[in-house]
Amino acid sequence: MSRQARYIGVIGQGESDSDLAQLAEEVGQLIAEAGAVLVSGGTGGVMEAACRGAKRAGGPTIGILPGPERSGANSFVDFAIATGMGEARNLIIVRTSDVLIAVGGSYRTLSELGFALKMGKRVIGLRTWGVDGIEPAANPLEALKLALRAD
Amino acid sequence: MSRQARYIGVIGQGESDSDLAQLAEEVGQLIAEAGAVLVSGGTGGVMEAACRGAKRAGGPTIGILPGPERSGANSFVDFAIATGMGEARNLIIVRTSDVLIAVGGSYRTLSELGFALKMGKRVIGLRTWGVDGIEPAANPLEALKLALRAD
Amino acid sequence: MSRQARYIGVIGQGESDSDLAQLAEEVGQLIAEAGAVLVSGGTGGVMEAACRGAKRAGGPTIGILPGPERSGANSFVDFAIATGMGEARNLIIVRTSDVLIAVGGSYRTLSELGFALKMGKRVIGLRTWGVDGIEPAANPLEALKLALRAD
Amino acid sequence: MSRQARYIGVIGQGESDSDLAQLAEEVGQLIAEAGAVLVSGGTGGVMEAACRGAKRAGGPTIGILPGPERSGANSFVDFAIATGMGEARNLIIVRTSDVLIAVGGSYRTLSELGFALKMGKRVIGLRTWGVDGIEPAANPLEALKLALRAD
Repeated sequence: MSRQARYIGVIGQGESDSDLAQLAEEVGQLIAEAGAVLVSGGTGGVMEAACRGAKRAGGPTIGILPGPERSGANSFVDFAIATGMGEARNLIIVRTSDVLIAVGGSYRTLSELGFALKMGKRVIGLRTWGVDGIEPAANPLEALKLALRAD
Repeated sequence: MSRQARYIGVIGQGESDSDLAQLAEEVGQLIAEAGAVLVSGGTGGVMEAACRGAKRAGGPTIGILPGPERSGANSFVDFAIATGMGEARNLIIVRTSDVLIAVGGSYRTLSELGFALKMGKRVIGLRTWGVDGIEPAANPLEALKLALRAD
Repeated sequence: MSRQARYIGVIGQGESDSDLAQLAEEVGQLIAEAGAVLVSGGTGGVMEAACRGAKRAGGPTIGILPGPERSGANSFVDFAIATGMGEARNLIIVRTSDVLIAVGGSYRTLSELGFALKMGKRVIGLRTWGVDGIEPAANPLEALKLALRAD
Repeated sequence: MSRQARYIGVIGQGESDSDLAQLAEEVGQLIAEAGAVLVSGGTGGVMEAACRGAKRAGGPTIGILPGPERSGANSFVDFAIATGMGEARNLIIVRTSDVLIAVGGSYRTLSELGFALKMGKRVIGLRTWGVDGIEPAANPLEALKLALRAD
């Protein structure tokens, strides 16, 4: 049941980058295989790759969009939430997730992980900012193990 | 598939009222039977009744919460979104829905239906405000027929 | 001092309408003459007219904008707040105001006055929706007298 | 006139810390002496200290509050904006400011400066995170000189 599942947020840049996309896709697949719900910003780049991975393994994906229309979601989002609030949607991704995995090092990712740490949420990092409080992982599998660990 | 489904938002008061709750529960059940996704504020009153109805028919329910924690959702919400933005979540319900059904006449409902009409979304009314632009329905079944009509 | 002043919000459509603009401009002027702070959405139509009136009388004006840039404010706004959150800024106008004056009858005004009433704030109406709870005023002067009355 | 003034945002923790407070107070005073508008979150700690400094020099202060009531502002805020949107108000502080000065190193500050950098806004740092893109300043005076430099 979705309700009791763990919600794992994947945060990362919207611009495409093939190395990060491969990491994110593996992360998404592992989230689905673990029976968790994937939460993301629902648009391109790292977010789309993570959703693609999750759907390959048949897991549910939620996309929390900046724009006013559900049609802005990538094609691997099951449930699209149209906030119409721009970047404020990043905070909703963090609030909705039990734990976050940050992939890559954009400034938006920095903003989101800072917010997550302030909210007292754990953040696992894959090639991301070296900020106190982030738990670095060497690869997607290690990231998932950390994300599934009891808080 | 959820993605192509119609998203129908049910808006109404959070306080319990047995007459409105019965209407909302029927609306929720009919939404699920139509294969649509139920979007609501995810807390009590009309929202909880609608979710209960939808789950009785096995349909998916999304609850867009005002508070910062998913645990604030009623027990019939499948996918809870924790906005932490208070009443601003009402706008996200409207944006995310293709069409809205307003049940009853609280001021919050008035605010939400005004916003929906401004966004150019259709609003079906069940015992709600007599505002220009609202399409009144005599009962839940008529409300659903109106909600499913092509825009 | 601004801090102890009464904050009066003027809500109304962004599209221009010369009759409503004249009303709004008088309202703005009277707000300033009463030593109150004018709060509005800071863009065109009723909002711009109200700001123009307030500045003619030398009173302070705050514009809470939907867009991401302060430059979106009309030229009679002293202090512009760039929310970047679209229509969610309407809720901030209501929260920030002690009392609201609604001018005219757009759907956005309906949404805002519904929200204000839900928040327990008084709303004075000038040619606006005939909704229970709104205090109708025959003209700007009467609107101001009502708005300045102790709650 | 306030309208053409530079808006300088001061971001920093809400908890009190006497060293940071002294820095922030100097920053606030220098902002006011430069004829700029001080934008902050309007509550305690670094924010209150900055506002106190600005008011000592007679400059205008805007406080963008997380809560639903203007009364939540510290006593040195001239114009209080009640967002009722919790931490989402941080984004409004960034949007509203032309340039930001980050004082100290809380996670909220990290989130805000990440968002500012993503928005393409300059961020001057005083004892804050050593993040690429931040312009470090040795003291309040140097911070102001950097903040007033043309972009």
